[in-house]
Amino acid sequence: MSDAQPVEKASIIVMSGDMDKVMGAFIIATGAAAFDMQVSMFFTFWGLKAIQKGNRTGSGLMGRMLGVMNRGGIDRLGPSKFNFGGMGRWMFKKMMKAHKVTTLPQLLKQAQELGVKLTACEMSMNVMEIRKEDLIDGVQIGGVASFIADASESKFSLFI
Amino acid sequence: MSDAQPVEKASIIVMSGDMDKVMGAFIIATGAAAFDMQVSMFFTFWGLKAIQKGNRTGSGLMGRMLGVMNRGGIDRLGPSKFNFGGMGRWMFKKMMKAHKVTTLPQLLKQAQELGVKLTACEMSMNVMEIRKEDLIDGVQIGGVASFIADASESKFSLFI
Amino acid sequence: MSDAQPVEKASIIVMSGDMDKVMGAFIIATGAAAFDMQVSMFFTFWGLKAIQKGNRTGSGLMGRMLGVMNRGGIDRLGPSKFNFGGMGRWMFKKMMKAHKVTTLPQLLKQAQELGVKLTACEMSMNVMEIRKEDLIDGVQIGGVASFIADASESKFSLFI
Repeated sequence: MSDAQPVEKASIIVMSGDMDKVMGAFIIATGAAAFDMQVSMFFTFWGLKAIQKGNRTGSGLMGRMLGVMNRGGIDRLGPSKFNFGGMGRWMFKKMMKAHKVTTLPQLLKQAQELGVKLTACEMSMNVMEIRKEDLIDGVQIGGVASFIADASESKFSLFI
Repeated sequence: MSDAQPVEKASIIVMSGDMDKVMGAFIIATGAAAFDMQVSMFFTFWGLKAIQKGNRTGSGLMGRMLGVMNRGGIDRLGPSKFNFGGMGRWMFKKMMKAHKVTTLPQLLKQAQELGVKLTACEMSMNVMEIRKEDLIDGVQIGGVASFIADASESKFSLFI
Repeated sequence: MSDAQPVEKASIIVMSGDMDKVMGAFIIATGAAAFDMQVSMFFTFWGLKAIQKGNRTGSGLMGRMLGVMNRGGIDRLGPSKFNFGGMGRWMFKKMMKAHKVTTLPQLLKQAQELGVKLTACEMSMNVMEIRKEDLIDGVQIGGVASFIADASESKFSLFI
């Protein structure tokens, strides 16, 4: 960005909607941004939940069904293991709180404050019938081309 | 490919056999290939399903059991969530069709037409008792060394 | 390491505790190390199981519960699919033995002999109440910053 020295980049594609994996993605993203890296996160499929407002989505029957089963909002994500109908989410949140770990909503806020670029996958939004107004503010919408362009210039790229 | 400037490379290792993740892998692979990148996909463990013909495999008892439980063929893959004994696969296919998303078999065909290199992991084939004749045409067989060689020269490498 | 030519690096972050994925991580790590690459593995969340001694962990109630449900030790990992309460683990081990595949404990030993750097994620250890003495020997403890530093210098970085 400056002409003095090129900024180092990092790219993360988030396809998972599991609490632990999304948390890992944001911890790496905010960590890299804190080292002055320019970080891009590309949210696709289940990962879109992390940047949804938490309302139900889907205009058609299918989208509504999926919206009910898979209601978005970063605070509703459950872990990839031991969820037991929400029990795992409760337990993890409790353990994380006890050990003073930054929560997912806080990590998302930090990421935005640190200038992490958040992009929602346009094709996934279409398939899952998620509209722009269902997403949190400050998210841009883009295709796979934008991820590939970022990843090609990145020091590291991760698929989560 | 040309002697004027080196071709940019991308590598993807596909261990997942979930429809959504394999789809993500092929969308990134064909997207990168469309940008003139030289893309390598390395299929291992469950990922082998995506490049199998769809016949049952396994000569021994174990391989036959695994072949029945985990029958290959790219059109048989189910999503990582909400499969409900095939319901999820049906629903996703319907939603994707409604929104005119390229299907997995079409993406595989596109990848081959765009010159994406498809490699099957030799060790996984041995363990899962999958033979060369169980794989689709145009796939080469290789070890982890071939993935490492590709990844070391790639602009980005992803584990899916 | 030498001043003659820089060593090529590779980084792997292991968040999964699934036998097949951890196995993939170690096969890539030992493969890259065999090519004289300097490999770093960063174990976080469920991935910590792979470098635990196998004792129960957790001082608080939550940590004890998690320790019982998710007892560590690389020999106790089950596959990501078809586990059936341990059946899958047994079957995979049998198939791998029949086809003379290196076992996970052997791969871990090889990785250490080849000089692969094993780092345990400090924050995950805190959340899951895993102590330093619960980890195998030769593992160092570090934060996400150590992963980012390694990944930024790596030829390829993978999230598994």
